[in-house]
Amino acid sequence: MIENRPAGKFEPTILNRKTPIPSDIEIAQDAELKPITQVARGIGILPDEIELYGQNMAKVRLKILKRLENVPNGKYVDVTAITPTPLGEGKTTTTVGLSQALGAYLDKRVITCIRQPSQGPTFGIKGGAAGGGYSQVIPMEDLNLHLTGDIHAVTAANNLLASAIDTRIFHENTQSDEALFRRLYPVEESDVRKIMPSTWKRLDKLGINKKDLNQLTLEERRKLVRLDIDPTTITWKRCMDTNDRFLREITIGKADTEKGMEQKTGFYITAASEIMAVLALTTDLADMRTRLGRMVIGLSKSGEAITAEDLGAGGALTALMLNAIKPTLMQTLEGTPVFVHAGPFANIAHGNSSILADKIGLKLADYVVTESGFGSDMGMEKFFDIKCRYSGLKPDVVVMVATVRALKMHGGGPTVTAGKPLDEVYSHENLDLLDKGMVNLLHHIKSAKKFGIPVIVAVNRFSTDSPAELEMVRHAAIEEGGAEDAVICRNFELGGEGAVDLAEAVVKAAEKPSTFKYLYPLDIPIKQKIEIIAKEIYGADGVDYSPLVEERIEEYTKLGYGNLPICMAKTHLSLSHDPSLKGEPKGFRIPVHDIQASVGAGFVYPLLGEMAVMPGLPTRPAFMDIEIDDTDKIIGLM
Amino acid sequence: MIENRPAGKFEPTILNRKTPIPSDIEIAQDAELKPITQVARGIGILPDEIELYGQNMAKVRLKILKRLENVPNGKYVDVTAITPTPLGEGKTTTTVGLSQALGAYLDKRVITCIRQPSQGPTFGIKGGAAGGGYSQVIPMEDLNLHLTGDIHAVTAANNLLASAIDTRIFHENTQSDEALFRRLYPVEESDVRKIMPSTWKRLDKLGINKKDLNQLTLEERRKLVRLDIDPTTITWKRCMDTNDRFLREITIGKADTEKGMEQKTGFYITAASEIMAVLALTTDLADMRTRLGRMVIGLSKSGEAITAEDLGAGGALTALMLNAIKPTLMQTLEGTPVFVHAGPFANIAHGNSSILADKIGLKLADYVVTESGFGSDMGMEKFFDIKCRYSGLKPDVVVMVATVRALKMHGGGPTVTAGKPLDEVYSHENLDLLDKGMVNLLHHIKSAKKFGIPVIVAVNRFSTDSPAELEMVRHAAIEEGGAEDAVICRNFELGGEGAVDLAEAVVKAAEKPSTFKYLYPLDIPIKQKIEIIAKEIYGADGVDYSPLVEERIEEYTKLGYGNLPICMAKTHLSLSHDPSLKGEPKGFRIPVHDIQASVGAGFVYPLLGEMAVMPGLPTRPAFMDIEIDDTDKIIGLM
Repeated sequence: MIENRPAGKFEPTILNRKTPIPSDIEIAQDAELKPITQVARGIGILPDEIELYGQNMAKVRLKILKRLENVPNGKYVDVTAITPTPLGEGKTTTTVGLSQALGAYLDKRVITCIRQPSQGPTFGIKGGAAGGGYSQVIPMEDLNLHLTGDIHAVTAANNLLASAIDTRIFHENTQSDEALFRRLYPVEESDVRKIMPSTWKRLDKLGINKKDLNQLTLEERRKLVRLDIDPTTITWKRCMDTNDRFLREITIGKADTEKGMEQKTGFYITAASEIMAVLALTTDLADMRTRLGRMVIGLSKSGEAITAEDLGAGGALTALMLNAIKPTLMQTLEGTPVFVHAGPFANIAHGNSSILADKIGLKLADYVVTESGFGSDMGMEKFFDIKCRYSGLKPDVVVMVATVRALKMHGGGPTVTAGKPLDEVYSHENLDLLDKGMVNLLHHIKSAKKFGIPVIVAVNRFSTDSPAELEMVRHAAIEEGGAEDAVICRNFELGGEGAVDLAEAVVKAAEKPSTFKYLYPLDIPIKQKIEIIAKEIYGADGVDYSPLVEERIEEYTKLGYGNLPICMAKTHLSLSHDPSLKGEPKGFRIPVHDIQASVGAGFVYPLLGEMAVMPGLPTRPAFMDIEIDDTDKIIGLM
Repeated sequence: MIENRPAGKFEPTILNRKTPIPSDIEIAQDAELKPITQVARGIGILPDEIELYGQNMAKVRLKILKRLENVPNGKYVDVTAITPTPLGEGKTTTTVGLSQALGAYLDKRVITCIRQPSQGPTFGIKGGAAGGGYSQVIPMEDLNLHLTGDIHAVTAANNLLASAIDTRIFHENTQSDEALFRRLYPVEESDVRKIMPSTWKRLDKLGINKKDLNQLTLEERRKLVRLDIDPTTITWKRCMDTNDRFLREITIGKADTEKGMEQKTGFYITAASEIMAVLALTTDLADMRTRLGRMVIGLSKSGEAITAEDLGAGGALTALMLNAIKPTLMQTLEGTPVFVHAGPFANIAHGNSSILADKIGLKLADYVVTESGFGSDMGMEKFFDIKCRYSGLKPDVVVMVATVRALKMHGGGPTVTAGKPLDEVYSHENLDLLDKGMVNLLHHIKSAKKFGIPVIVAVNRFSTDSPAELEMVRHAAIEEGGAEDAVICRNFELGGEGAVDLAEAVVKAAEKPSTFKYLYPLDIPIKQKIEIIAKEIYGADGVDYSPLVEERIEEYTKLGYGNLPICMAKTHLSLSHDPSLKGEPKGFRIPVHDIQASVGAGFVYPLLGEMAVMPGLPTRPAFMDIEIDDTDKIIGLM
């Protein structure tokens, strides 16, 4: 244990494993739950540093960081994956299993950090996101439904801002400068006009140096009260944590009361809201206030960036996020602590759980196991270049999850589709396909090593994998890929016991001195940053920009966003931009169709294709199976 | 104390009153908060009957009702009001003050039951809804923002159903009967087709008596899989807990992926969702499951009512509401316990907090003080005829809140508008106007007495009211109106101490044997019920129905909704349907423009005018004042 680490004695929960393995929800509901106060105590969190949400969840107050500021950080482990099939390759399951092994078998202090799952997929096609088998975060119902309300808070904040935008345009369109001035800055007692906390910032932005608003010239008043938003430039949309395809594109303002000011817009799922990315990247409350205020919602007719601050909404948005900024503590099936915090998209956003959860975890635990979204080309690259850049934290080990199934697909196996039966090739030994697909794994290992971090390959074993297949992956990973180690994981069926080899490999690799480095510096042009990622991580020959994108990059550079990190919005189903290109694609160029900025979160995101930001429900949505049984328990949740 | 009442010792919190009275949020943030565990213990709730949400809120588990089923109920006090000005007359303040007086001064066991406020008005024009001055529910930030997430749960459930409707239509439009059958009822192992929990209900509704879906004829399959919803009949809309006027009327489905299936629809604020009304009227989880399943979303092309059950969503909606069904325990400034639960609209819904909170309260306390929305013509009538009908509970006392201000308005005083300075007449003695306006108070007292309940008038005293004015109201209420008593309340400035007279009057009135009766029986025609309310409560001469309404009433009667209670959707600003008619309007007829049914909640609601179900933001929304201070506290919330 690292010196100064706060006291606390972890007691593992003993798994009561059954054969055949029951469904995920059966295992979860059958599990023994430690009171969350005990989980907190076990990792050294003080009673007044948590806020209980029922018996099984607690929010951790940020003041804990102050108490532990002089404690050295634990080891920082990122779990990523090769290019997955649409079914996913068990990254969360491996993350949880590794943590269970470290905590319950190797007696290490460990904290797992994962994203909060969206309700959309829970009721749609994917089901929940608690891990699987005997490697799960519990209670899975809370995790997959409301948790402690963070996603709802993001929805509320996002939509308050959206309403503020349209209503402001409406009122500016229907009122004179003087009426707006009178209403926005009413005279209070003693004849002084009321000033909102955000007003000083706007005055400053406008270069007006007066303290008494009554002294403003007519022109200055006009500038102050008219944001003059150009409706065609608004990028801020509404959001909902529901898979609702009919909201993708809508026309609003069709009631008579809105006087014909119709507007085309749409909804994204809440995970795609910039506020979710802000939550994930923020480092404290003051930083969150700043980020929320500087979010850009569109441009004025004269081309000035209009922010949440200009609308006077930065404080209210922060008030809405006051509880959400605190990570939620839960537990694994074997009783190790888990932080669930933030759930940004892994394409148009950076796809990683929060900096704050990781920071607190590193003060409390010897090992923080944190998961990045999608494959290493997506979540891991952003983990290093965006998340670690904002946190200043240095990772120690990368765990690369691979499956024989996915590698066979990369070797040319038949298409894998969610909800359809798998081809036979995936359940029978086929060394030839597997060998051909190995290039994908090797590419991902190589990418991770470019950041100076040792790589452990975790082969998530399926019961249909043959010993020869598993050995082939291990051998290639180590001998050809240069992984520190490659281990077979059986934690889905065995829990932590099935990931002891992985845990031991991680502990060993974490002892190596970190030589972590970013892939690119911030102070080079946007295009150069994009090209470095495209060539170094995707293996592209180059990048092509549409004229719109060329123009936008110029505009962003002028607006001062040129020094932000890049968050590539790319398919996760291929190393390239084309989801049909499996294995290790060669000889391709990346087309950038569009580029957007999340100025509050702090990144620019080039779009390499259409990104679905609002999923739909299938013909037979997962919600159809959900019921409440006689004991008031939820059944049918997946 | 009633026999068998569970043990528990209440300790009042001592108010630290200041002069002049600080702002509501300053008082609230300055207040001493008892740990909510202590509040629970003080009223006899066992530790395992609560789920903590931080230090200051807890949800109460419904199992407490089982433990206390043999305890006799306490006294049941409904707080209502005369016809208010748009500023409101301090009903919540009186509710809280009365409770503080009963608990902290008269040593009675008391529980206050109020609705959860919507975030919309908190950020819009109205500000929060925690009461005011030294009669508040705390922490007011939690109450006015997310509380324990119940409104968010309603939003999530409402919108899941909305998405399910549109997506089902989409999939039915684009797939053959056979494809729908294959997908909705996939073959599982052993060749049996998977059946969802809701499938039996639909088969039953269709009159199909087969247990094996493979045995269905083609025609039966078609009936099973095609809900055949007529898009023009859909009454289910999406909702959001945000004041967002641009969502009042919208067109959805404009993206190419929705293949031209555009649809006109809109959003209401979440308080207007039928699911909110269900939450308020439900009596246990099984009952909630039934109500959510039977909610009607529109009609099939053949005129059959289509329910959430038909869409297979009843179980999932209940799962989303599993935490929301538990009331939230908070406290007043003087430490008395408060249940905050459900927040249905008071026009298109019944405007009362939940049955479950009242039920639990009546088992724990000698006095439950519960508040109804708007004036007695609205919330109180619905409290008696809808809420008490579904709960089976018998109320004992009505507290009628009146102000000199509102009575002057009813006597012909100048228009009162929110956000505009009040006319002088309201701050200077004017016995003539007051006398003329008294008819409004007398009418409300008479209405309450029609239900067989004694009435106590609570005059919410403003500092500008003269002694002669206050005495005039008291005198008229008792001598002309037949109120049991009429007392002056100063609890805004003094807390419970300012409502001791009121509390004593309530205690005395509650000793009278209850002669409670409903205004109308359920088994008479819809029109007759409407007419009884219009004549007896509003003082109308009669009711006129539009042809559409005549038709709809016939249809509802055929569909079996004829025996539901009536929930009139009327303005609260007049006893009549016309908000400009103050005092006690005479010689008018009520026009019914439209009529709708909330079949899940269990009422039919005739609309007597345009009801605003989605408020807007003013030019200067309240959110502009909200900030986070250096100590991470919210400031500027009202």
